[in-house]
Formats: sequence, structure tokens, C-alpha cells
Amino acid sequence: MERFRDVGRRLSNWHRWGPDDELGTLNLITPEAVVAAAGLVRTGRIFDLGIPFASDGPQPGGGRINPVHLMRDTGAGQVYPGGMHFADDYIFMPLQAASQWDGLSHVFYDDLLYNGYPAAEVGPRGAGKLAIDKFGKGIAGRGVLLDIARLKGVDHLERGYSITPADLDEAARTQGVTVGAGDILLIRTGWRRVFTTTGDPAAFMNGEPGIGLACAQWLADRDVAALCSDNWAIEVLPGEGDEKFAVHCVLIRDMGMPLGEILDFEELAADCANDGVYEFLFTGPPIKFVGAVGSPVNPLAIK
Amino acid sequence: MERFRDVGRRLSNWHRWGPDDELGTLNLITPEAVVAAAGLVRTGRIFDLGIPFASDGPQPGGGRINPVHLMRDTGAGQVYPGGMHFADDYIFMPLQAASQWDGLSHVFYDDLLYNGYPAAEVGPRGAGKLAIDKFGKGIAGRGVLLDIARLKGVDHLERGYSITPADLDEAARTQGVTVGAGDILLIRTGWRRVFTTTGDPAAFMNGEPGIGLACAQWLADRDVAALCSDNWAIEVLPGEGDEKFAVHCVLIRDMGMPLGEILDFEELAADCANDGVYEFLFTGPPIKFVGAVGSPVNPLAIK
Amino acid sequence: MERFRDVGRRLSNWHRWGPDDELGTLNLITPEAVVAAAGLVRTGRIFDLGIPFASDGPQPGGGRINPVHLMRDTGAGQVYPGGMHFADDYIFMPLQAASQWDGLSHVFYDDLLYNGYPAAEVGPRGAGKLAIDKFGKGIAGRGVLLDIARLKGVDHLERGYSITPADLDEAARTQGVTVGAGDILLIRTGWRRVFTTTGDPAAFMNGEPGIGLACAQWLADRDVAALCSDNWAIEVLPGEGDEKFAVHCVLIRDMGMPLGEILDFEELAADCANDGVYEFLFTGPPIKFVGAVGSPVNPLAIK
Amino acid sequence: MERFRDVGRRLSNWHRWGPDDELGTLNLITPEAVVAAAGLVRTGRIFDLGIPFASDGPQPGGGRINPVHLMRDTGAGQVYPGGMHFADDYIFMPLQAASQWDGLSHVFYDDLLYNGYPAAEVGPRGAGKLAIDKFGKGIAGRGVLLDIARLKGVDHLERGYSITPADLDEAARTQGVTVGAGDILLIRTGWRRVFTTTGDPAAFMNGEPGIGLACAQWLADRDVAALCSDNWAIEVLPGEGDEKFAVHCVLIRDMGMPLGEILDFEELAADCANDGVYEFLFTGPPIKFVGAVGSPVNPLAIK
Repeated sequence: MERFRDVGRRLSNWHRWGPDDELGTLNLITPEAVVAAAGLVRTGRIFDLGIPFASDGPQPGGGRINPVHLMRDTGAGQVYPGGMHFADDYIFMPLQAASQWDGLSHVFYDDLLYNGYPAAEVGPRGAGKLAIDKFGKGIAGRGVLLDIARLKGVDHLERGYSITPADLDEAARTQGVTVGAGDILLIRTGWRRVFTTTGDPAAFMNGEPGIGLACAQWLADRDVAALCSDNWAIEVLPGEGDEKFAVHCVLIRDMGMPLGEILDFEELAADCANDGVYEFLFTGPPIKFVGAVGSPVNPLAIK
Repeated sequence: MERFRDVGRRLSNWHRWGPDDELGTLNLITPEAVVAAAGLVRTGRIFDLGIPFASDGPQPGGGRINPVHLMRDTGAGQVYPGGMHFADDYIFMPLQAASQWDGLSHVFYDDLLYNGYPAAEVGPRGAGKLAIDKFGKGIAGRGVLLDIARLKGVDHLERGYSITPADLDEAARTQGVTVGAGDILLIRTGWRRVFTTTGDPAAFMNGEPGIGLACAQWLADRDVAALCSDNWAIEVLPGEGDEKFAVHCVLIRDMGMPLGEILDFEELAADCANDGVYEFLFTGPPIKFVGAVGSPVNPLAIK
Repeated sequence: MERFRDVGRRLSNWHRWGPDDELGTLNLITPEAVVAAAGLVRTGRIFDLGIPFASDGPQPGGGRINPVHLMRDTGAGQVYPGGMHFADDYIFMPLQAASQWDGLSHVFYDDLLYNGYPAAEVGPRGAGKLAIDKFGKGIAGRGVLLDIARLKGVDHLERGYSITPADLDEAARTQGVTVGAGDILLIRTGWRRVFTTTGDPAAFMNGEPGIGLACAQWLADRDVAALCSDNWAIEVLPGEGDEKFAVHCVLIRDMGMPLGEILDFEELAADCANDGVYEFLFTGPPIKFVGAVGSPVNPLAIK
Repeated sequence: MERFRDVGRRLSNWHRWGPDDELGTLNLITPEAVVAAAGLVRTGRIFDLGIPFASDGPQPGGGRINPVHLMRDTGAGQVYPGGMHFADDYIFMPLQAASQWDGLSHVFYDDLLYNGYPAAEVGPRGAGKLAIDKFGKGIAGRGVLLDIARLKGVDHLERGYSITPADLDEAARTQGVTVGAGDILLIRTGWRRVFTTTGDPAAFMNGEPGIGLACAQWLADRDVAALCSDNWAIEVLPGEGDEKFAVHCVLIRDMGMPLGEILDFEELAADCANDGVYEFLFTGPPIKFVGAVGSPVNPLAIK
């Protein structure tokens, strides 16, 4: 199979939006696309695609843990004039603990980040370039769901199943939807169910179904702006070859595409299957963590 | 002046949406309202209302600190087949450190939360009722900006200035906009500028201009669904009387209204002043922190 | 078997050291005892009893997690006159994550803490009384190791094994050591090995051997000042009766005795078995976390 | 004045204790020295040299913040058989937030750590060599206090005052104490008082009195094992030349000497002045944070 460096070179968007660009494929979401996306709101139904952030989440421990939520105040012991009580709380977590955007500084190779920025821009104090806060004005536009699990007639795709461009085409055709420039593509593998039915982080995190490297060309051909999935790493794992996270390397570092991971498409997918409408307004603003390489998110799909 | 308990009793929404309600005034955002709000998107311009989350933010220390962002991985020292490198990061912060939603479990009095839930629902492990994750499907709808600083012709209102119902009426009239049922109201005081021009948390946090208690009736009369401001506590501080956070008590605990604080309306306000359009689609989904009393947020206003 | 309230009432040290006392049985360590303990240092060998604090520690997750250590600076990217580089780091952890002192505010019942302080002294902001920082000048004195695993000729006692006063007596007699007033008693169960040989937090945390409630009288009779063990909760688990953490209740809340948990006695025990000397100078100063109910610790035994 | 590289080359201890050494000058504390140090305990008086760890500590914010202590459990809402309640807590802090040991991986230059280890040993995951947990069996031995503030007859030395070898000699002579091989030297500047009397972190952190680079030779001549002070960075600041943290570079990276900072010698110094005895048993065990570059500490001086 093709090496990721070859794919990346072919699909590179470096300097497509100028030498100072930090938005990557989000540049493809034009104001006109936003207006058109808003026009997809016909019933006012809202689907929240973020998972719950809690200590019983999908992180098995190690480098990433589940969020730790601690109360600083519960109202106990407070005496204020008038009798008001308040509660306050803290969070400690990896920014990639649960539903998240991968920023463009999250993955790189050969000492260069997207658009040719030096890897040294990412250091102990964070990302000097391509940090997630640069996406503050997004990520909003037309969302399209391709439900591959449904296409295959399964509860969820199997670990290690590599979604192909043909799968994507067939899903689009079957669903009667097209994927085009500036779209935010949501690929449903059903893998989220592995966690929700077992509650077992190890089962969820030990591999997954996801797109194969061949899909990068498919995404580039359509000028997709952002890609989301209900697995934890977008791409099939174990990977197709011996190169680790080959899809991440191409999508993030070469194409400059934000990735949305550990999302929940179950309720949305059921609704889409029901009404046959697989497009919607998508708004998934990252929290503007300065210098961060990712952000928690709770995207809304509004139909 | 009237005591907040009297105002709260008069404006109470307890049981208006049933004994099990945890959404409060968000119930006022109907699907029809969402569709109508989407219809306000005419040019595709997006304004992000969240402030940057960073160590140089507006918290002076003490109970709430600025977010602490730490890198777990920078890519340094990694050797993976194929040459991929990745960066990962952690955050530690109060959920009320910067741009935030106050959930309905954030403030209470007389041992009862909104809708009559016992205060003991809020404990060391978080909020058993009225936690912020209940707002997961929101907060989205029609946003309306009332620019009181502009109305008064000032850069920002003064510390201790109490915005009145008459101010709100006059701003709406001058701007040619109406505030109605299910709206998400944004009140601009300009107070954000006190921080952005000085960088001094103490100057920003030591009091503020904001609405007075009399505005609660005004908000109730119009069935406003949620209230946001560019100050840090919605209400005028020091307060009008000796009761601490009287407005919080009535809006959150009695009316069940989510409050959005420490937002930045500067760019949006300039645009509204320019085109005379003060209404827009607003989407400000909280991160679904289970059991939390608040959430960071980066709301988008889309025109 | 006897209820813990009855034992606690009988062994209570409340007001023994005055109504304002916050030191409990640490009062039993007199200056003379410290001098005598220093006299036990004959060879200068030092044994460190704290376990490593790391992400692969004994916490299985849930309420307590293993420490999360994050670098803020690694030296990368720094340019200072002269060429100095520095590294800095952060820790996030439960104060009871690994080797620890339980302070006297850690456990209570019937709305009262040790010495009769109201339970309300422990609130969301910490402990107003009996916080761990009150132990700042300690905990140092004569340490005595009773090696019950060795006495029984086992690698480690079994989960659920309840150490009896007779076990303690027999160990002391066999070892040729006496336990007396002001001593810091170390009881070795061998349970630490369950973790070090398996690396499995669940195996370590799912019950343990430890002292039974009857040992409280034994400790009181001898005026022991502090108690340490190589298990995670001092007492046998599951407990002897239906009362949860009965031994904690009596030792901490009634007797006012600090407990040292999740310690490692393996190297020390081997040395003691070798030279037949089971007494030593013990110094285990807690970090003075103001208002905290516990502290990490790395006690030294010096022979 | 001499450049620090020249001083460091002259005083280097690299390979003095073998190519694999990670203990540096702690090697100078022999078992015999420990026995002798224990012999200094004559009255049993204990002085704790750690400062309180709390949110109102000496960190002004920025790279290092004061510890954030949060309760996970207060006992509220707990229902266990028998009626036990427990409290648990968490800490988030820089390991260098308050009283601390600087490990040998804390400072380096010219791409090499102490003993010639490559700087790349310190990375985003911590220190692969020279981490603080290597000091687990220490730091204990004979402590000697040199009270320079008292020598000069001042409450505290002035910011920018550079303590000289002559100062150290004169203090030792006046106090009637000698500093020798394997000693843990405590230098009192009185600077701690700047914080305790003002409560102002900025006043405390904006420069300090401390040793000048010339003292490195003095320390080396006597084979001092570890150095502690009541300021925040051992050395005079602003420094004597244009090289940043020149003393740190030589002591840590070239000589391999642990530094104890932000300690409180006030009570100890008063006692020493009173009885004329400036030597004692010192035990300051670091918490064994694996891979960390420093550790909080609460050292005990026992006389």
C-alpha cells in the first residue's frame, strides 16, 4: 500500500491559503456555505453529539485519564447577607479526554507541522502556531452524516475494519446525500456503542473501525472541511500498514483538516434514518484554550 | 427596595414545566423558535463570544484561578514506526474561570434549588439535579444584543451602574429590535474592555456594571430563555441593597434561567452597530460535564 | 462482636490533652522519647518507606486516581543569557493516592470529629480543625516494626485476615521488642507485595489483611502514638462486622491516632530480620497542606 | 567576574561517584555521618522548616501558582453501615510551589545534565535520569544553620545582597560552628519575613538576597552535601552578572548538589540564637515523585 508521505505530498494543502494560514480546510467553509447550512434547519430538532464528561468515561488511564470533577464550593458553610448560597467546581482533564477537536498542532512528522511551520512551534508551553484557539470562530457549517454501520447492517463495524472510499460513496448514494466543498463530514461506525453497552474503556480503546488511508483522497476530492467520527481516532486501528496513525498524519499535517473524535451519533443517526435527511446545520465551537492542541466539544446538529 | 425573596416568589417558574423539570427557561426555546433563529443567518458572518482561556485571564486568584494548561506530550522524544509525532495536553481550571454558563445548581437559598429541589442535591460529588450536562442539547436559538454602553455613548458603563428596565426598553427601541419569548438576550456593558485595556484582573473583578433586580420582571415579562453579558456576574456590583447576588438568586433559583458570563461582545457589537441588525442565530453548547454546576463555553453568534 | 461505638467510648482520648487539642496521640511523643529514638541510630542505614508516586500506582480509578505528573518546562525552547535551561513540573493527585498520613479530620461519625469538634468543621474548603498541617512538627520518634507476615511464615497475609492482639504480642515476643508509650508502630502484612508482584491495582485494593477492632485496646494499652501499615487502610477488609471502617472510626475519631497507609516495609523488614533489631528512628513529616485531611509522605526509618 | 562555566568546570563532580551516579553530593552523607547527626539530638525539640502549602502562598501566578486544594468528599451525603463518614481531598500544584527540593534534573546547560547525562533525558514525560525519586532515601544528616541576617544585625538581608564566602566564614566563627563534609547547610537570609510580614508574593519573588557565585568554591571546599535557604532561589537576584541563575548552574549541574528553597528558619534560628547550638539532625525526605524534577518537602530539624 501507499506510504503516507506519498499521499500527504499529493494531497498537501500547504500554502493553498497563504504562508500564514492556521485554519487549514476550515477555509473551505465560506460565508455562503454557512448561510446555506442554516437553511437546512427545518424542524428545530437539536442533537448534541458530545458524550458525557465524567470519571466513568472511555479513558482507560495512562497518558489520558477521564475528567476529574471536583467541587470547590457546595454552598455548605456559607453565610452571606440575604442568604444566598453558591456552588463552584473545578475540572482536571486531558483536552483529549472525551469528545474533542484535534487541532492542527496535534500531529506532525519530519519536523514540520501543517503549512510548513517548524515542529519546534509545539513545546512545553503549548503550540505557538496552529493552536486550537485559532478555530474560535468555528467550527460551523453544513454537516453530513454517512452512516456506514447502518449501510453494512450492523450494530457497529468491527475493530480493524477499514472504511473504504467505496463505502463512503455507497453510503452517500443509499442515503441520497452528497458530500461537497466546505462540508463537515460525520462518519458513523457505531463504535461508540462498544463503550455504552459495556462501559469498558479497554474494549473501546483497544483498536477500532475507521477510515483507511485511501479515504484521504476521497476527502480531498470533495474539499471536505472537517471530519468527525464516533470512534476515538478517526482511522482504522490497528492500521493498515506499519506506519502509526498514517491517516492522522495526512489529514492533519498535510491537508490541515480538524478531526472530531469520541462523538455520539446514535440519536442523530436514528433520526436521519427515520426522516431520510442526512444533512443539517453543525456547530461545534472549540473552547478557546490558548496554545492548546485540542479542545473538548459538544457539537450540535440542528435539523 | 424590594427584597429578592419577594421578587423571586412573584416571578417563580417552579413547576411551570412540571415537577421534574431541570431546564428552566430553556423550555421557552421551541423548535419553531430554533427554525426562526436559523432564518436570521443571512450573510454567514460568525462571531465567537468566548474569551481566550489562558493563564493571563481575568481571574485574580483565590477561589477561582485562571486555567492552567500543561502539555503532556510535545512530540519530543517520540519514536513511532513511520515517524509520526503527536502532542497532547491537560487543563486544570475552575469551570467558571472564563466564558461560562452558570447552571441552575450554581446558586440557591432557603435550602431549595430551582423547582424546589433540595439544596442537598448539591454536594461534594457534584449536583444530583440541575447539573450543566442537562443543558447538553442547548443552548441555541435567537440571540438579541442590547448594547447599553452604546446607548449611553460610553466606552463602558461604570462600576456600580445598575441597568434599568428603561435602559433595556430604550436600547431595544433605538436599535429597532424586540426581545421576545425564547430569546437569548445578550446585554453589553462594555465592561470586558476594562480587562482587555488594562490586563488587570483586579480592576475587572472589583465590581461591575450590570442589571439591577428590577430587570428580573422585565425578563420574565418577555419570557427570555437565557441571559448573557460581557461582565463577570450579570448583575450590578456592588449590589443595590445589602443582599448578596440578589439577581442571581431570582434569575437562577426562582426563574430557572441560565446565565452566560465573561463573554466578549466587542466584535459582534461593532458589526451590529454597522448594519443595524441586532438579532442572530446563537449557539452556545455547554460541555457536558456530568454533575457540574457550570461549563466553559465559546458561543457563536451567526448573522 | 463489640460495636465500634462501645470500643470508641471506652478508649476515647477526647479532652485528655485539653479541649483545644488537635494532635491526638502524637502528644504521647515526648521530647525525651525523641532523644531516645535518635539514640537508636547505630549504623546510619536509612530505609525509605514511601512508595513511588506515579501513574502506574495502586489506585484503580474512581474516587482516587494515581498521581498525574506533568511537565511545565523541559528546557526546550528556552533562551536565557548565559545559556541556563530549567525544567519545572506539576502534580495533580488525591492526597491519599499513595503513601499517606490520614489526618484526624479524615474519618468521623455521629456528627463529631476527634475531641468533640463538630463535623461541620470539615467542609468544601477543607478542615477548619484537625487538618494535617497541624502535624507539621511531626511525625518523628521511635519506630517499631511488627512483622506479622514473617511471624506467620507467609509472603503476605491473606485478604480478610484479621490481625489479633495475640498476633501482635507474639510478634513482639518473637522479635524481642516491646511496644511502648509514644511509639510509632509499623505493622507489616506483606500486602504491599500483592501490588508489586502483580502491578494490579484491583488486586491490591479489593480487600486486605489488617488489624481487627480488638487491636484498638492493645494500642491504647500501650499508648501507641501513630500506626502505619503496608496495606491501604490499616484494618482488615472486608471488616469483621457490618460496620464500615470500624477501626478507622475508633483509632482516628475516638483515640486521635494518625494512620500511615500504603507504605513499603520490604527492605526494612529484611534488614530487621537480618540483624534482629526491630526498632529505629522514624521521621515521617507530612507536607503542611493547610486544611487538608491527609498528606503524602515518604517516611524514613533510620537504624 | 568569573563566568559560571569556568567555575563549574573547576568544581565539577562529574564521574566522582561513577558514570551512573544520580545522587551527586548526597554521596557525601556517609552512614557514619548519619549516626553522628543523630547524636546531635539532645533535647528532643523539633523544628519544621516547611512553609504552609495554601492558596495564599508566595507564588504570584504565571508559571508557578500556589497549591489548589480541593475536597472530593467532606462526609456530607454519605450513608454507610455503622455511620462512618470520611473526607478526601486533592491537590494541584507545581512541585516547586512552596518548600521544595530542586532535583538534579532541574537546571542544566550546554545540552548536558549533571554527570554528563544528555539534556534529552528531561522531556515532556519527565526526567529519565536524575529525577527526584532517586533521592528517596534522603535527605538526612547533620544540619548546620548559618544565620547571615543575624550576623549582619538585620531583620532580613536586602534584595540583591550577595552573600560572600567571608560572610559564611564569619557566621560560622561567630556562631562557633564548623561546616564539614556531608553537612546539609542552611543559610538564613531572613527573606522569608518579607513574605510573612507583607503577604505579598510580588515583594517576595521580585529578587532576593542570596549566595553569590563565589560561594560555590566555599561549598566545594567543605564538601557540603545539600544547601537550603529561606529565600526562593538560593542565589542572589538580580544576579551578579548577566548570566541567569549562574549559581544554580554550577551547584546543580556541575557539582550535583540538591537545593532546598522557600523554607522557614525563623523558629529554628531563634532557638539556635538562644542556646548557641547551630547544629542538629536534619531529615527532609522528598516525596518520591517518579520522573519529577523537584518535590515539596517539610524538613525537620531535631535538636
